[in-house]
Amino acid sequence: MADHVPGSKVDVSSIACGRLTINLSALAENYRLLAAKVAPAACAAVVKADAYGLGIEKVVPVLVQAGARLFFAALPEEGRKVRRLLDAMGASADVYVLAGLVPGTAALYLDEGVIPVLNDLAQVENWARLSTERNGTPLPCALHIDSGMNRLGLDSEELERLLSQPQLLAALDLRVIMSHLCSADEPDNSLNDEQHTLFSRALSRLPKSAASLANSSGIFLGQRFHFDLARPGIALYGCNPTPGKPNPMHQVVTLEGKILQVRGIDAPQSVGYGATYRVTGPGRIATVGVGYADGYLRSLSNKGRAFAQGVALPLVGRVSMDLTTFDISALAEGSLKPGDWVELIGENVTLDEVGHTAGTIGYEILTDLGRRYHRVYEDA
Amino acid sequence: MADHVPGSKVDVSSIACGRLTINLSALAENYRLLAAKVAPAACAAVVKADAYGLGIEKVVPVLVQAGARLFFAALPEEGRKVRRLLDAMGASADVYVLAGLVPGTAALYLDEGVIPVLNDLAQVENWARLSTERNGTPLPCALHIDSGMNRLGLDSEELERLLSQPQLLAALDLRVIMSHLCSADEPDNSLNDEQHTLFSRALSRLPKSAASLANSSGIFLGQRFHFDLARPGIALYGCNPTPGKPNPMHQVVTLEGKILQVRGIDAPQSVGYGATYRVTGPGRIATVGVGYADGYLRSLSNKGRAFAQGVALPLVGRVSMDLTTFDISALAEGSLKPGDWVELIGENVTLDEVGHTAGTIGYEILTDLGRRYHRVYEDA
Repeated sequence: MADHVPGSKVDVSSIACGRLTINLSALAENYRLLAAKVAPAACAAVVKADAYGLGIEKVVPVLVQAGARLFFAALPEEGRKVRRLLDAMGASADVYVLAGLVPGTAALYLDEGVIPVLNDLAQVENWARLSTERNGTPLPCALHIDSGMNRLGLDSEELERLLSQPQLLAALDLRVIMSHLCSADEPDNSLNDEQHTLFSRALSRLPKSAASLANSSGIFLGQRFHFDLARPGIALYGCNPTPGKPNPMHQVVTLEGKILQVRGIDAPQSVGYGATYRVTGPGRIATVGVGYADGYLRSLSNKGRAFAQGVALPLVGRVSMDLTTFDISALAEGSLKPGDWVELIGENVTLDEVGHTAGTIGYEILTDLGRRYHRVYEDA
Repeated sequence: MADHVPGSKVDVSSIACGRLTINLSALAENYRLLAAKVAPAACAAVVKADAYGLGIEKVVPVLVQAGARLFFAALPEEGRKVRRLLDAMGASADVYVLAGLVPGTAALYLDEGVIPVLNDLAQVENWARLSTERNGTPLPCALHIDSGMNRLGLDSEELERLLSQPQLLAALDLRVIMSHLCSADEPDNSLNDEQHTLFSRALSRLPKSAASLANSSGIFLGQRFHFDLARPGIALYGCNPTPGKPNPMHQVVTLEGKILQVRGIDAPQSVGYGATYRVTGPGRIATVGVGYADGYLRSLSNKGRAFAQGVALPLVGRVSMDLTTFDISALAEGSLKPGDWVELIGENVTLDEVGHTAGTIGYEILTDLGRRYHRVYEDA
């Protein structure tokens, strides 16, 4: 908390209007929990979107320490960042990029030691050609087989064409064969079994390599979904991979907003833009310095809640760009004052709850967390 | 576009999966248009939320060049950044912070030359006390009178108490008296007149100072809302301050997503998470490397659209964290391929449209624009 503005006496923690606390011990604990659950399969860590918004620089070293040796990023540029960070740490771990060998990216994969996930036949052909051109040293890659997501990966027709040209994969160092589940958070959805069957069938026809199907929720579908390598993302960061059941993961993120002003309301009055909320009785409204520009979604307007001193405080009016108003009448007068913090996400108002209230999922809340918060990384 | 990854041969523009182009000439033109409209009143520029997501470092110099001499930031830390940037440029302009003199921030306002907007009586008292303690040199400030927003600013009771202690304002260098409209985007809403009346009444009882009421939409409510100083924000950045009428502003932002994969669909199949979209006939789906972690809101799922080669392309399936799928069947086979760009926000799919489709407003789309885009600043 001793952060200072460069060249100034001013302490960032004292001027911030939002405070994001990231519990790195809980993150490590989550990794160990998932790794133990999938053992003897290996457990990768998905750190795309700047480690789900929590910061690659802080998250990756903790995961390495907890035992992760295989990382997945979404974009080539993200993969490069993770790779360089691992190199600087002297950590021997592989970094895969899910976007794959998109036109324009070959130089990055060749020069930076990042490994592409090959998503279509053209990518396999290009990578095999580059392998051959570079003195025949097989270049490392993962192969993505689509099993029903229809988003990335070789479809069944492309798979047949790949199988008819065995020299392509023979030219490559194929380290992982993967697919992605589209409904793993619904354990009873028959799509899970269908995808499992399609993936298993593809595996049986491809060269032996580490097989990977399970994302966070997939890990909880049972051992037969674990194959050789699991790829959890969101569960590492504390969201519930088993919706409808108790969350097996530890809470990683706490977001607090600072109260800028408390106002007493005597007569009926409206609050905020568009006057969408009307206070009827006498009460008190607190204005908090966090808004939708901080990723505190506008769809929480008139629906969200904060938490302070054991009491839930309804969000009233519209969330505005930098400010949100809460009805704090349930607390005694004077118990909350300007400068005090209220919980916006945390132990009492979970990421999953905020996502649900906002009409979305905790994942979006997490990855949209803004850049204006004072970030505090807690380690045990 | 010649950006290179530090220490690498790789060109960032070639590996990016999203490209955000910011037209600085249009931004300058928007400022000049608004300044001309409110003249002889002065025209400030609101640059909170990192200049509505477009980058303070790039936006502020352009606005200074266009004539802006007064800036508003939301948070103390933002104000400090703008102040230092202006100082480095040698620009003489004032920077106000809307969050005001929150506990813990006095040192910043005293040491960094940033001016607080005083939002309640306690803030006025504290700033007057600090003025007196510092050899009686009146400290600069703005005063925020609430006229119906019930969010920040002195309410009517606090205003009476302030007026009963004239020594408080006498101790201060009161430069701006302001209030904020809550329904300026609805010209026929009677709240606008009510707020105008309340604000005018307060002005008549306070010491003479520059009066400011109009935000972007307020500027278009007519000259009597302009007072001495207008404070446009969103209109500078191209959103329509006159909903329901043609947009008088120039488009500033273009967002493009790169196609990572094109897939032919023959038989009926579902697309994406939860299988929420089912392709019925033969067609083609393009997967684009932009998702909700980039601020491309998940609420656009199955509703948004992209634009390419003169054709609108429906968003199909759910927006996922790093990827979004579009139905490109309306274009001839082969006309879009991996590596090509499609417009997600721009001339054809406006910020306001994207906001409306996502169930929110263009403001939120703008301020949530992610950090993974390759940013291109265009100047005339």
